[in-house]
Amino acid sequence: MSTATTPNSWLDDVEFDESGLIPAIAQDAASGTVLMVAWMNRDALAETAATGHAVYWSRSRGKLWRKGEESGHRQRVRELRLDCDGDVILLKVEQVGGIACHTGRESCFFRRLDGAPGQPGWTITDPVLKDPELIYK
Amino acid sequence: MSTATTPNSWLDDVEFDESGLIPAIAQDAASGTVLMVAWMNRDALAETAATGHAVYWSRSRGKLWRKGEESGHRQRVRELRLDCDGDVILLKVEQVGGIACHTGRESCFFRRLDGAPGQPGWTITDPVLKDPELIYK
Repeated sequence: MSTATTPNSWLDDVEFDESGLIPAIAQDAASGTVLMVAWMNRDALAETAATGHAVYWSRSRGKLWRKGEESGHRQRVRELRLDCDGDVILLKVEQVGGIACHTGRESCFFRRLDGAPGQPGWTITDPVLKDPELIYK
Repeated sequence: MSTATTPNSWLDDVEFDESGLIPAIAQDAASGTVLMVAWMNRDALAETAATGHAVYWSRSRGKLWRKGEESGHRQRVRELRLDCDGDVILLKVEQVGGIACHTGRESCFFRRLDGAPGQPGWTITDPVLKDPELIYK
C-alpha cells in the first residue's frame, strides 16, 4: 500500500509512541500460542496490511524487518487487531515453518517461572525445533 | 515477596527498559485469548509472582495497579513466561468475571482491521459484556 495514494485513516487511529513505534504481538491463528513481540512503525504496519505478511521495525538494525526474509519463517497475517487505547497491535498469523523464535523454537516465550515460593527460576520448557545455524545459514 | 529478604535472581534476568518497565501480555489460560497488554516495573512483577494475582504499573497514575482492585476483575496467574530477549512478560491468567477491558469487554483487542484493499478500517467485533458504569461504580 502506498500511503501517499490510498486512504490511511485507519493508520491515524494507531497511537505510535514518541519514537514512532508500537508493540506488535504475533499470535498463532490456529493454536492461540503467543509467538513473539516486536515493534512496528507506520511504514511497517502499512506494509503488513498491504502485503498480508508481517513486517516489523528492527530497533537494533534501524530498518524494516520483513519477518522471514532470512530464515524463510514468514508470518502470513490472518487478522490484525488494535487494543482499546490504540497503542498495541495484535497479529493473528500462520507461522511458516512453525518457528517464530531466532533460537529455533516455535515461540519466543519458551521460559516459564517455576519453583517453590521464594526460590523461583526461569525454566526452559520448549524444545528447539531446528538448529539456528541451519536456519540462518 | 519481599525482594529484600528472598532470592531474586529470576528478577535479574528480566530486562526492564530505560524507564524501569517491561510490557506484560495477559492471555486467558483456558481459551488462549489475548486479553490486554500493560506494563510492569520490578515491584509489580515481584508482587505478581508472590501473590499469584496480576499487578501492573500504571503509567498514567504513576503507581502500582493491582488489576481488579476497583472492578473486581482480578487476574489469577497460572503461568509467567519470559521471552528470548528477556524484555516481554507473558501471563497466562484466569480472568475473574471474564472481563479484562475497561470498556466491559473480554479483551482489549476488540477491533479488527476489515475492508477491501485500499479501504480498510477498524471494526468493533466484540460485545460489551457489562456496562462500564456498573463496573466502576
